[in-house]
Amino acid sequence: MRAFEVVLAWVESRILGGELTVGDQLPAERELARQLDVSRAAVREAVRTLQAQGVLRSSVGAGGAGGTTVTSVPARALVRLLRLHVALANFPVDDVIEARIALERLSIRLACTHARASDLAAMRQAIAVMAQPGVDKARFNDADTALHVAIAEAAGNRLAADLTIAIRESMKVPLLVAFSYVADWDQLVARLSADHAELYAAIDEGDADRAETLVETHIRSAWARLQAALPAGGRHTGS
Amino acid sequence: MRAFEVVLAWVESRILGGELTVGDQLPAERELARQLDVSRAAVREAVRTLQAQGVLRSSVGAGGAGGTTVTSVPARALVRLLRLHVALANFPVDDVIEARIALERLSIRLACTHARASDLAAMRQAIAVMAQPGVDKARFNDADTALHVAIAEAAGNRLAADLTIAIRESMKVPLLVAFSYVADWDQLVARLSADHAELYAAIDEGDADRAETLVETHIRSAWARLQAALPAGGRHTGS
Repeated sequence: MRAFEVVLAWVESRILGGELTVGDQLPAERELARQLDVSRAAVREAVRTLQAQGVLRSSVGAGGAGGTTVTSVPARALVRLLRLHVALANFPVDDVIEARIALERLSIRLACTHARASDLAAMRQAIAVMAQPGVDKARFNDADTALHVAIAEAAGNRLAADLTIAIRESMKVPLLVAFSYVADWDQLVARLSADHAELYAAIDEGDADRAETLVETHIRSAWARLQAALPAGGRHTGS
Repeated sequence: MRAFEVVLAWVESRILGGELTVGDQLPAERELARQLDVSRAAVREAVRTLQAQGVLRSSVGAGGAGGTTVTSVPARALVRLLRLHVALANFPVDDVIEARIALERLSIRLACTHARASDLAAMRQAIAVMAQPGVDKARFNDADTALHVAIAEAAGNRLAADLTIAIRESMKVPLLVAFSYVADWDQLVARLSADHAELYAAIDEGDADRAETLVETHIRSAWARLQAALPAGGRHTGS
């Protein structure tokens, strides 16, 4: 085991054992290095790793003292992880779509029961951006992401929301590439906007069964349209 | 932006842009440090972070030269990330169960079509371990994890499998704690074994609709039984 892995294992076992919890402070770098008999650089390497996992947060204090605190912000870490692996094509886009459907069906079902006025307002706002005449592709993509994020947030299930958000974010670049090949952009916008209006109505009326079916149909048909627009060599065949 | 973040951003943007892909080698630590005008320690911190995300792999070569290669092994990274955040209770167990059901429904549906003989053999082996008379709780927990992992692997959807595995692994410790409170262990084993036999039969017969329903009922009822066994203060109420 390398030096930084000793530190990593020390922190992780304390978190899993419940001895370190959110808000707790890690021993100072120098102290932890002494205690585990490793270099301060090794401690820093482990801390960076756990920062990237959304498990530690470092703040620079007066005179560079600062402190490292246990936190829990998995969303950004998940987004980063999935986005990189989608880009590395370890996760074929067709597989990502299937996983996305499973999670968005759950999120929208829960959103039908739990959405508050502020969640509905966020959804309406994203829909309004996409309905603006002449909306460009990047702006549409951002607003579409925002709509699906708002639905996931409304679900009130943090894990489902974070996974849904991470998957939608990981698809942002591939979707923008696909958008660039769409010939009749206005027609696609009209089609997707009609879908979004239906989704919103189902959530607003709290009709979970309808919302689940609609979101699956929406994701599948949007993806099929985008695939049809891609040049033959760029199409994902699910292999 | 801190020095290691400069390196992180450099590597990530190259991966997202498709310039760095699986199998490619990163410039040597010294070279990258010079190129980005940061310290070698900062390069190492960024490399550790990306290793933990399953995106880079470092090998020690002759004379400590070694090399850092782009890889893509997200499963361990996802398991680690989710396990830590479940332990930090950012994801309440009831939320985890709902997300798990959504993903396992998808995995088992796909497994009904894609399971090969070797997948079915792995499932039977796990089931056989759980059926051994007097099986202890830790061993049962490991075999139960192995069964759900085998079903996820059989699905042939890498993302769904990795997420399913990460979630099941993240529940290993909480489940073992719950097991420790079960008074009539033999009765629970009998009940769960009957469930597993039904799940296996549905996969073996390729009956996806039945398998989906069974896996949801199995996860819900197993969790309800375990919750009922927990002392009142330890019960998760979904809040």
